[in-house]
Amino acid sequence: MDLDPKTDLTFTRALPVPPALVWECWTSPEHIPHFFVPRPHSIKSVEIDLRVGGKFNTVMVVEGNEMPNEGVYLEVVPGKRLVFTDAYTEGWKPKPDPFMTAILDLEDDGKGGTIYTATARHRSAETAQQHEAMGFYDGWGTVVDQLVEYAQSLQR
Amino acid sequence: MDLDPKTDLTFTRALPVPPALVWECWTSPEHIPHFFVPRPHSIKSVEIDLRVGGKFNTVMVVEGNEMPNEGVYLEVVPGKRLVFTDAYTEGWKPKPDPFMTAILDLEDDGKGGTIYTATARHRSAETAQQHEAMGFYDGWGTVVDQLVEYAQSLQR
Repeated sequence: MDLDPKTDLTFTRALPVPPALVWECWTSPEHIPHFFVPRPHSIKSVEIDLRVGGKFNTVMVVEGNEMPNEGVYLEVVPGKRLVFTDAYTEGWKPKPDPFMTAILDLEDDGKGGTIYTATARHRSAETAQQHEAMGFYDGWGTVVDQLVEYAQSLQR
Repeated sequence: MDLDPKTDLTFTRALPVPPALVWECWTSPEHIPHFFVPRPHSIKSVEIDLRVGGKFNTVMVVEGNEMPNEGVYLEVVPGKRLVFTDAYTEGWKPKPDPFMTAILDLEDDGKGGTIYTATARHRSAETAQQHEAMGFYDGWGTVVDQLVEYAQSLQR
């Protein structure tokens, strides 16, 4: 992928769970609350319409405050790639002040695991720096830990 | 379609050419220069990768000045719906200051013609007002006239 170090934040991890399971967790409203935000934050509701232009809406709860986040999927390649953004709400309605576009790439490692690459693209270097300062690497890293733990609990 | 009069500009026209031909004109690099901008402005180059996330890049010439415009397709439903925006360049790279998202809906009128609806969605009421003041209705209307004239020349 063609990355711009000024506006893109990205990391790659090797996960001990297969791409199909990672995909299932990332695309099912019943699974999302189990890993999607670093605990003790939580997810109160999830709406998913898994198609290009379909909604991906969540409500996160942070210290008792509900924080809705509405977005859409831009690219849906089952088991391989999921792209979503808060730049639109469903129906291609542009939002005034989008924060990021997230790209998840899943690659089969040939041994039952997943090479997991998460990339957040931003409109400006300032937004990327802000996201990094908010704890992008820590936060998204914790989400991956929670995802693996939850996915393994489903395998048992 | 769910419209917001503050941020969306839209119009519908009945065209005497069939949807398949309108679609062909709107999606082929060789046809675009014949109608895409109101004359005497012209199009110097067109790059099209007709898929979700694929590029739709043009260079317009206005009074001798080249004005590049890069964008991507968000939705491609052959013969029916084309959605594109300057909010991204190819590879889902967000642009810092997107102007609009364009939605073209083509409907077969059952008599060899097309019900053509063009909608421009904007991030804010200010941007929509700016687009209207720039001559959205006149400009996009002229583009439709040029499109019909050109499409009819292809039918002969």
